[in-house]
Amino acid sequence: MFKDATLNEVSDAMHRSFTAYNAFKKYSIKQRAELMRTIAKEIEGLGDTLIQTTMRETNLPEARLKGERGRTIFQLNSYADACEKGDWLEARICLAIPDKVPPRPDIRKMMIPLGPVVVFGSSNFPYAYSTAGGDTASALAAGCSVVVKAHPAHPETSAMVAGAIDKAIASLGMPKDLFIHLHGASFAIGEALVKNEYTKAVGFTGSYSGGMALFNWANQRKEPIPIFAEMGSVNPVYLFNEELARDPGSYANMLADSITLGVGQFCTNPGIIVGIDSPYLVKFIEQLAERISSTIPGKMLHTGIAQAYEQKAKRAIGQKGVKVNSDHVQQLSKDNSQAIVVTVTASNFLSNPTLKEEVFGPFSIIVICNDYAEMKRVAEIMEGQLTSTLIASTSELITHEAIVDIVKSKCGRLIMNGVPTGVEVCIAMQHGGPFPASTDARFTSVGADAIKRFARPVAFQNFPDQLLPDELKAENPLLINRIIE
Amino acid sequence: MFKDATLNEVSDAMHRSFTAYNAFKKYSIKQRAELMRTIAKEIEGLGDTLIQTTMRETNLPEARLKGERGRTIFQLNSYADACEKGDWLEARICLAIPDKVPPRPDIRKMMIPLGPVVVFGSSNFPYAYSTAGGDTASALAAGCSVVVKAHPAHPETSAMVAGAIDKAIASLGMPKDLFIHLHGASFAIGEALVKNEYTKAVGFTGSYSGGMALFNWANQRKEPIPIFAEMGSVNPVYLFNEELARDPGSYANMLADSITLGVGQFCTNPGIIVGIDSPYLVKFIEQLAERISSTIPGKMLHTGIAQAYEQKAKRAIGQKGVKVNSDHVQQLSKDNSQAIVVTVTASNFLSNPTLKEEVFGPFSIIVICNDYAEMKRVAEIMEGQLTSTLIASTSELITHEAIVDIVKSKCGRLIMNGVPTGVEVCIAMQHGGPFPASTDARFTSVGADAIKRFARPVAFQNFPDQLLPDELKAENPLLINRIIE
Repeated sequence: MFKDATLNEVSDAMHRSFTAYNAFKKYSIKQRAELMRTIAKEIEGLGDTLIQTTMRETNLPEARLKGERGRTIFQLNSYADACEKGDWLEARICLAIPDKVPPRPDIRKMMIPLGPVVVFGSSNFPYAYSTAGGDTASALAAGCSVVVKAHPAHPETSAMVAGAIDKAIASLGMPKDLFIHLHGASFAIGEALVKNEYTKAVGFTGSYSGGMALFNWANQRKEPIPIFAEMGSVNPVYLFNEELARDPGSYANMLADSITLGVGQFCTNPGIIVGIDSPYLVKFIEQLAERISSTIPGKMLHTGIAQAYEQKAKRAIGQKGVKVNSDHVQQLSKDNSQAIVVTVTASNFLSNPTLKEEVFGPFSIIVICNDYAEMKRVAEIMEGQLTSTLIASTSELITHEAIVDIVKSKCGRLIMNGVPTGVEVCIAMQHGGPFPASTDARFTSVGADAIKRFARPVAFQNFPDQLLPDELKAENPLLINRIIE
Repeated sequence: MFKDATLNEVSDAMHRSFTAYNAFKKYSIKQRAELMRTIAKEIEGLGDTLIQTTMRETNLPEARLKGERGRTIFQLNSYADACEKGDWLEARICLAIPDKVPPRPDIRKMMIPLGPVVVFGSSNFPYAYSTAGGDTASALAAGCSVVVKAHPAHPETSAMVAGAIDKAIASLGMPKDLFIHLHGASFAIGEALVKNEYTKAVGFTGSYSGGMALFNWANQRKEPIPIFAEMGSVNPVYLFNEELARDPGSYANMLADSITLGVGQFCTNPGIIVGIDSPYLVKFIEQLAERISSTIPGKMLHTGIAQAYEQKAKRAIGQKGVKVNSDHVQQLSKDNSQAIVVTVTASNFLSNPTLKEEVFGPFSIIVICNDYAEMKRVAEIMEGQLTSTLIASTSELITHEAIVDIVKSKCGRLIMNGVPTGVEVCIAMQHGGPFPASTDARFTSVGADAIKRFARPVAFQNFPDQLLPDELKAENPLLINRIIE
């Protein structure tokens, strides 16, 4: 139904995107914000037709999709507010000091947009991290043009949302090519997009292998470009005895709900739980297994994802010392994917790197340690993560500071006595962690700081006020926060 | 005199650096600032011995070295102030909203240090971009440990400065291995440092080939790491008729002084001047050539640099249509390097990529355009630059907005009616530009924002006040600027 773009179409799209960027970058932050708010309204205007289309394409239930649509609209509106507020511009003004030796000239700095940004739609978030998702919203706020490659798992949804964006652009009389939507199931399209000379940054949410392909293409270019790939995570949860003992059943229920949320198809799904052998841990495992067993199997996004889940879960289960704790209500099948919880001793876990690998879906492995020294070793071998969670009392985190320290050094977000699923869209959010969770831990892909990914600073030296951008003019006409020295 | 570190020593140094980092990262921003100020004092305490040593090693004159020492001390002190002030921490607090659906937990974000940073000393700045230079100062401010590889052109200077840093660390009772100093003339040492598993970021100032070697090593690692390589620039200067006509002689003198400053050994040296054919340009060229010709040839940093200058200058002069305008007071020689200015038509320049290459030293090429359309084409083929300069009236920059736009898109700092040499150490400075000027245009290597290169954000979710870092505690004990939502 949707044909892949040809390589000529990719090249033409990037050139048109560059031309549109050159016009768009001169639009004020207020105009950019207006565009984002108009896109939000147009998406809302797609109404139930959009939801129905996506339900058909993705197997995601109505309530989840309505929630995600709300999140997408909230992102557009809140990044629009942040775009206008202008903190991301990092405006700094150093006034001239004529009597310094040598004299200091007037120097002013602010962020400017990088250029055309290529966004790869994700499979698991057809709205919030796809066509008009976080990457597109941040790129537009920064003043970049955007070329989206629709995810082949929901091309019709993507095309509908793209239509809403086109309509918003047209209604404001902005350059049409500011946003370009392409289809492409083949790797060659992705490679051509990343390697095109006009592409200045890339946003991606997906698998490690997909992200690394983009990363390598981006760095092999004559002019390397920044690539923001979020590549998944096992989001370890560390259980400390005292806090667990307070209420092992409730923590088990809380984690079971997090593991099975959306058939486990969230990048912050808790895939590894690390505890210390004790009667409370036994109770926790029993309750977790029971809750997981009683979860009705759900349809995953598409057959490919369900098959990959089945394969990776089977592979993990087949490793030495792995014991399945949940019951299988039914056999793993292509149609409905069963949540699974397994246990393994820390010594088996420590000696088997396969067990550290993400099983994308409602699967979690409980690592049973003899003591905190063993928990520390488990924390040490963990790779970079989007999140890590500590179920612990305040005094336990003080006592085991060395473990907290290691855990913190390996994640972007540290949660205490909560669950990693549920990524709040707010300015304090960090979504992105040390490699391999993401390719650049210095930036977030959720929250308005995500705008900074698509901008770079430029300093103006000795410019008359008239020629300075409004952001840096003496009278501060945009009323943004600035550091003045 | 100084032996290269062995590969075992490199590996041992990085492991020790990691251990020291784990202790140092817990020091408060006030303690880090105290360390930096103490280092500044210790360097001052080295007195004339340091200056004399460096004069012997680098051929740089006393006044220049005293100036650079002052700059280095200023950097340490001003980054210490910025470290304490804490804007670079980007502290953001989103308070819990319990009655939101679903409830919003308390989320707080701040920057934490990346880990051990490897700094490669530069040849042209034995103090300000070497052992205790901008990279070391920013890394320490961020809370990172530092391993410096001394530049082989001034190993004794580097060892003396390292001694001052060691003394400062000892006097404050901080971990000794917080700063480690190695010698290494071979590429293998550099490769081992960049590829070591404990290395978490790299700072470098030098050649394109050197920078790209580091860049590729950093990206080929199992866990890629950020690399901040500043790789030089030709820093184009664009002359607009009206402003030039006002006083061609003064502009010629100003630029001649910038070209010959420090025997042209600054990364912001203006290597290409682009003008429009006119009687004023003729006058400008005559005066520039005269001033350049009358400049007394100077000794470059070392024989290798002088030889490279001679070769690259000869190569440029040998290109089709290149005319030498300055007189040779003496033949190019290994001992003293003669400043040279040449002219070429835009059509020759546009068709010959060799002429775009940096000739490191007091060499500048004037590109003569027939009109502004041709100047625009010259601007378009320019690569990424640290700086670009516009000699123009306000009305000319309004008329030729399209040229300004292109020039701005290709540089980190845009100067009007001034010279690119003289990089002010201040918060509004941007030193770093689009590739190949630097490997990451999103960061600066001069000014306190340089600290941000060596930090990444971490979010704390649902943490009790007691367990939060001071930077994020409710009462704001460090009195830093924070965004609260």
